[in-house]
Amino acid sequence: MSTHSFDRAFRERLAELFRWRRDVRHFRSDPLDPTTLQTLVREAALSPSVGYSQPWRFVEVRDPARRAAAIDSFSRANGDALRGMSGPDAEKYAALKLSGMREAPTHLAVFCDCGTPSGKGLGRATMPETLAYSAVMAIYTFWLAARAEGIGVGWVSILEPDVVTAALDVPEGWQLIAYLCVGYPEDDHDRPELERVGWESRDERSATLYTR
Amino acid sequence: MSTHSFDRAFRERLAELFRWRRDVRHFRSDPLDPTTLQTLVREAALSPSVGYSQPWRFVEVRDPARRAAAIDSFSRANGDALRGMSGPDAEKYAALKLSGMREAPTHLAVFCDCGTPSGKGLGRATMPETLAYSAVMAIYTFWLAARAEGIGVGWVSILEPDVVTAALDVPEGWQLIAYLCVGYPEDDHDRPELERVGWESRDERSATLYTR
Repeated sequence: MSTHSFDRAFRERLAELFRWRRDVRHFRSDPLDPTTLQTLVREAALSPSVGYSQPWRFVEVRDPARRAAAIDSFSRANGDALRGMSGPDAEKYAALKLSGMREAPTHLAVFCDCGTPSGKGLGRATMPETLAYSAVMAIYTFWLAARAEGIGVGWVSILEPDVVTAALDVPEGWQLIAYLCVGYPEDDHDRPELERVGWESRDERSATLYTR
Repeated sequence: MSTHSFDRAFRERLAELFRWRRDVRHFRSDPLDPTTLQTLVREAALSPSVGYSQPWRFVEVRDPARRAAAIDSFSRANGDALRGMSGPDAEKYAALKLSGMREAPTHLAVFCDCGTPSGKGLGRATMPETLAYSAVMAIYTFWLAARAEGIGVGWVSILEPDVVTAALDVPEGWQLIAYLCVGYPEDDHDRPELERVGWESRDERSATLYTR
């Protein structure tokens, strides 16, 4: 018997949250309330983790020089990616807006503390990658909770993780999982931007239940 | 301006979902409705993915021999993990129930299709691990949506990924991300089982907002 159940109305709203959650690249520049940011990190801390290791570390990047280093890294990595393409893909790629790093009021780097003793290694002997996966789930909790507050998140993966990690001067053993732009979005959409601009369409295999 | 906003009541219920979502190891054996399972996979397909690659592949493991192979793999990996421990940790570890594979009505293996052309490689030149991370987020969407239906999920990471992948005879290039037990939980809790039994406690660093 369930002692804490959720009703149909909630489930419908939750499905809407999944549908309206976007990877945002178009931000307004007005700042977030610091209390809200802390609340979102506290909610993210309720995420599942392998062996209860809780390895995620949320770092707000405030220092202008460090933010600039991350933006420079994106610019280099994005330029390299473009030079690796040709034909219509290159044209399309060049037209995409792939990060809102300049406008977003908040930059958040999320690391996995690979040296944490928490959890005593339980559950990750044969699949050590589950430690990083735990940090990914914390990022996604933050993302969903933020969207429910009307706050947008954009995950920037087009950057050099070593360069960004060095620029942020974090403890040894912290592995960069994500660099997030956070702020109020310019507009809302229920379809991914990469679908709307014709880069990629819905892949039905992702909604298929295979059987074996 | 937000065109699709969520109210305070929803946010409070969402926070409760995060708080009551558990990694379940104690399942009732009554089966799930197949329609519900398909609906949950369809919701999971709304998850974020790098470059809109949508690389997750959900595989329901129905065949008794394949299920048995996964259970055997867990038993071996769990035995190895126990033999690697000593003292009070070994005693505590031996007493933990770390999988509900025998009781759970549904086994679900989730893979990352590393060879998918979807997304055309966008966003993963410098951080290729973001493809697997996308599958992790789909797993977590499934998990949250399931919990909102009163259905429990338990992520088993104590197994040999190569052995389980081979037993499931999936296409080349599919990487095992998670093996999930799914079913109705025997009871509900708002605290992780590993906390309740004294294996690990809340790590405050996981709820800290660091600044740089």
